[in-house]
This record gives sequence, structure tokens and C-alpha cells, in this order.
Amino acid sequence: MENFNAKLNVTLRKSVLDPQGQTVLESLHSMGFDQTESLRVGKFFEVRLKAKDEADAKIQIDAMCDKLLINPVIEDYTVELEKIA
Amino acid sequence: MENFNAKLNVTLRKSVLDPQGQTVLESLHSMGFDQTESLRVGKFFEVRLKAKDEADAKIQIDAMCDKLLINPVIEDYTVELEKIA
Repeated sequence: MENFNAKLNVTLRKSVLDPQGQTVLESLHSMGFDQTESLRVGKFFEVRLKAKDEADAKIQIDAMCDKLLINPVIEDYTVELEKIA
Repeated sequence: MENFNAKLNVTLRKSVLDPQGQTVLESLHSMGFDQTESLRVGKFFEVRLKAKDEADAKIQIDAMCDKLLINPVIEDYTVELEKIA
């Protein structure tokens, strides 16, 4: 078994309104950061897991996302897998 | 001016307890994902901004983090900058 570190970035789908991000963006504008054009807020998970190989790690991560971590109706995610010693 | 896309991953510092991550980890274990060894939860910001160049974009992002987005006492962040057309 090998050890993997997975970084999951979870964002609201583009078609879903993000009121939290909109509020943060307005705060940035009112603080003078007027070159900021858009901002969206999401979640970030850092998961350490054991797996046979990278393909097995990806399968496990996708299953965790499907069953617990993600709401597929409104959220998208990207995975970055890295093998660690 | 050029357009940049910045991806910010915000995590709790390693020394700070993460009860939310611990709870999610225990849920994963109870669902049978017993090869998961640790899990930490953080925030993710996707920011689109205008800047003169990459260095200027990085300065703006760091200022936003210092002044609004991050609590430097308990949080760390990483930035991934990408120039867009």
C-alpha cells in the first residue's frame, strides 16, 4: 500500500448563485480593491489515504465525494493527487 | 492591464485543531472508508482580477488575504496564479 495526499477543491457550479462570494467581492471593492472582477467561495479538503496505486486512490476519492463530501447537484470538484513517502 | 485567475487554498495551521475535519473523517470511517488517515477542511477562493503583471497580481492577492480573507493567527494559504486571455 502507498500513501497519497489528495487536495480537493470544491466550488459551486457556474450556474449556481454564490451570495457569500458576492458579499466578499463587495467588501473588497469597498476596501479599494477595485481591480477584483469576480470572486467565488468554495471548500477545500486535504485527505491523506492509503491505496494500492494512483488509480485506486482516485477511485476512493471519487467515491467519498459521491457519498459524502460533495453535493453533485450544485457543486463541482477537482482533485490533485500526490504520492507521499 | 492583464487578467489573472487566482486560486487560494486556505487551511487551518497544522497546530490548530480541526473539529470539522475530524467529524468528516469519522463519518468516512463509519461508512467503510477505513484507508483514510487524515482529513482537514479549509476554504477555497477563486478570484479574477486585473493587474499589470504576475508580480502585481501576487501583491494584490497577498494584500486581500492580509486585510480580509485570512485570519493569519490560525490560517495558512497558498496561491496559484494563472494568466488568462
